[in-house]
Amino acid sequence: MRRAEDLAREEIRRLKPCVHGGEVWDVAVETGRSLRDFVDFSSSVNPLGTSPKALESIRDGFGRLTFYPDSNSTALREAIACHYGGLDRRNVIVGNGSTELIYLFPEVFLKPGETALIPSPSFGEYESAVRKAGGEPKFIPLNSDFQVDAEAFKREMHGVKVVYLCNPNNPTGMLIQHSSLLEIAEAALAEDVLVFLDEDFIEFVDDEKEQSLVGNLGRFPNLIILRTFTKFYGLTGLRVGFGLADTGIIDILSRVKMPWSVNSLGQAAAAAALSDEAHNTKTRATIRAERKFLLSELAQLKGFRVYPADANYFFLDVRGSGFSAAQLREQMLKRGVLVRDCSSFQGLDGFYVRVAVRMRKENERLLSAFREVLNSV
Amino acid sequence: MRRAEDLAREEIRRLKPCVHGGEVWDVAVETGRSLRDFVDFSSSVNPLGTSPKALESIRDGFGRLTFYPDSNSTALREAIACHYGGLDRRNVIVGNGSTELIYLFPEVFLKPGETALIPSPSFGEYESAVRKAGGEPKFIPLNSDFQVDAEAFKREMHGVKVVYLCNPNNPTGMLIQHSSLLEIAEAALAEDVLVFLDEDFIEFVDDEKEQSLVGNLGRFPNLIILRTFTKFYGLTGLRVGFGLADTGIIDILSRVKMPWSVNSLGQAAAAAALSDEAHNTKTRATIRAERKFLLSELAQLKGFRVYPADANYFFLDVRGSGFSAAQLREQMLKRGVLVRDCSSFQGLDGFYVRVAVRMRKENERLLSAFREVLNSV
Repeated sequence: MRRAEDLAREEIRRLKPCVHGGEVWDVAVETGRSLRDFVDFSSSVNPLGTSPKALESIRDGFGRLTFYPDSNSTALREAIACHYGGLDRRNVIVGNGSTELIYLFPEVFLKPGETALIPSPSFGEYESAVRKAGGEPKFIPLNSDFQVDAEAFKREMHGVKVVYLCNPNNPTGMLIQHSSLLEIAEAALAEDVLVFLDEDFIEFVDDEKEQSLVGNLGRFPNLIILRTFTKFYGLTGLRVGFGLADTGIIDILSRVKMPWSVNSLGQAAAAAALSDEAHNTKTRATIRAERKFLLSELAQLKGFRVYPADANYFFLDVRGSGFSAAQLREQMLKRGVLVRDCSSFQGLDGFYVRVAVRMRKENERLLSAFREVLNSV
Repeated sequence: MRRAEDLAREEIRRLKPCVHGGEVWDVAVETGRSLRDFVDFSSSVNPLGTSPKALESIRDGFGRLTFYPDSNSTALREAIACHYGGLDRRNVIVGNGSTELIYLFPEVFLKPGETALIPSPSFGEYESAVRKAGGEPKFIPLNSDFQVDAEAFKREMHGVKVVYLCNPNNPTGMLIQHSSLLEIAEAALAEDVLVFLDEDFIEFVDDEKEQSLVGNLGRFPNLIILRTFTKFYGLTGLRVGFGLADTGIIDILSRVKMPWSVNSLGQAAAAAALSDEAHNTKTRATIRAERKFLLSELAQLKGFRVYPADANYFFLDVRGSGFSAAQLREQMLKRGVLVRDCSSFQGLDGFYVRVAVRMRKENERLLSAFREVLNSV
């Protein structure tokens, strides 16, 4: 028989797997350590853990495990629509993590050869998803301060099918200027260009409501906003994300989405997490305080340039430290701390590192490991 | 803006959603009843429920919910390979239910316009997945006894990219003759045709090991065998399935599969369920006894033709009853019993019903509801 590889589609054979943070399982195998032996600063997840209400709802779901999950996630979509206000459940699609929706969107909308505008650097899965669908990514660099340049986006938008934006951007952690965001969405609307706006980290932002475009959905039938229960809500292992958009976009995505993709414990836990105001308030306060603490401490480390953080992670230019990002990652891992080497991000060289904001003790462990490594030269 | 629908790919716009059994959530909303108010015979899942070992492992996973799941499912793949013997974890891919793998396979292997041979009737998702990938389904009817005709498959195989088989077949519940299965796989191998063999119900078959092609994987680099934790293992709500194949097929599927698609509780629960020999033995014994009981009782109902069942469900031709499948479903639902109207299966008319094998008390409830309905005319 011919090799299986040779039987596959051309665009599939060319795909390279995307590199990610949070590869704790691989690291555990590599280093022979247990998950508990190191602190993971490479994925940026709520350091307080999962909401107690969510855990309770998982326990309650044990008796229903032999039922298929609700393929339409009706109750969860209702809860989400209600949480944001002014939305109907027909404006909501739930996915197996926001990842499923990142892949579904170009699968539905990108015809082979059509172009997607993607900021560089940004989350790597947009490119993978576009390529998997047979589309062409067109990268548009952030400016030298890693800010979105609205003029450049508008200039490059002609003939493009979809514009990707991530706010706050991953891995740089900074918000897009609100006026720039609106300008781009408006220009896109005028040209029949779709906007895929990833707000997976926006719950960590101090003025979330002002920064999010959720309140502007009515104005933009070309816009889909991506959200997740993976980051702020800490349901990382359970895989629940969602998209908010005009019913036109939601209808066709829902029709095509594979059935039962979101497990039932995840659906129940997500609805519970959304309503756990005590846990969510505590999370916001913790992140605010620890972000402030980490900023002032990181800024004192020699050879690091620290970018201001709007989300729950810091983006560091480590060029002046004498270490590459890969070397730093390795040295930190020896000290039981996993950081994200950002070299795999399109548009970045080998001198950027991302670290999450965690609890005080963990943050202190990060800082002392950094100090030890930086002082070792 | 143009309607979102008009911006979508042509093959996507033509897609129709597949109809399924197990739509308990919709039925609950429709009828205003709670899930506990009716017995679901429309999805064919282990009636004993989830393995106690699996539940324990879910509880143990609570502390790890803020970690991403292992995107490679390494531990689970190891457990599966070990369970079947003679396999390496490189022969195993784990999916978000077997559904993810049903969609992934044509996405990777079917080039637009390429043809897939699909038995008719069989599980509807094969067609949906083929169409979503832009491929062309070519239906090949089972014979008048709903058996696979190996000669017909071999005749129609020329120029085809992939042959789908479901063993035991859904919704008919009967095994494919083992010699036919091997003949088709061999003819396919000789012509570079891939074989997608769905064995999602095979754990319910008395001589599973003899009937499965797992032991023949070494001979067939063109074969992928689909398995699931949804049916026999009762992890329905958690969404875990897997594929077994030569490393050539597994490698390329794994490279393309979206990251983190299988939640961490599901991965842990699946490994535990596999090793729960007590629960699994009890399940096999229960199904064997109840299948025998149901067969003799169903055969006495007037106007039903009952097909022999190798799996954990019965396929009924209700033509002689005076009811259509839709009418029967409606009448049964009024009595708190949900059965599967098979009209939506390609190749079947409106007179076939599928019912699961459940516990004795539930089976008696099914039978008495059937009797009541049939005697009402």
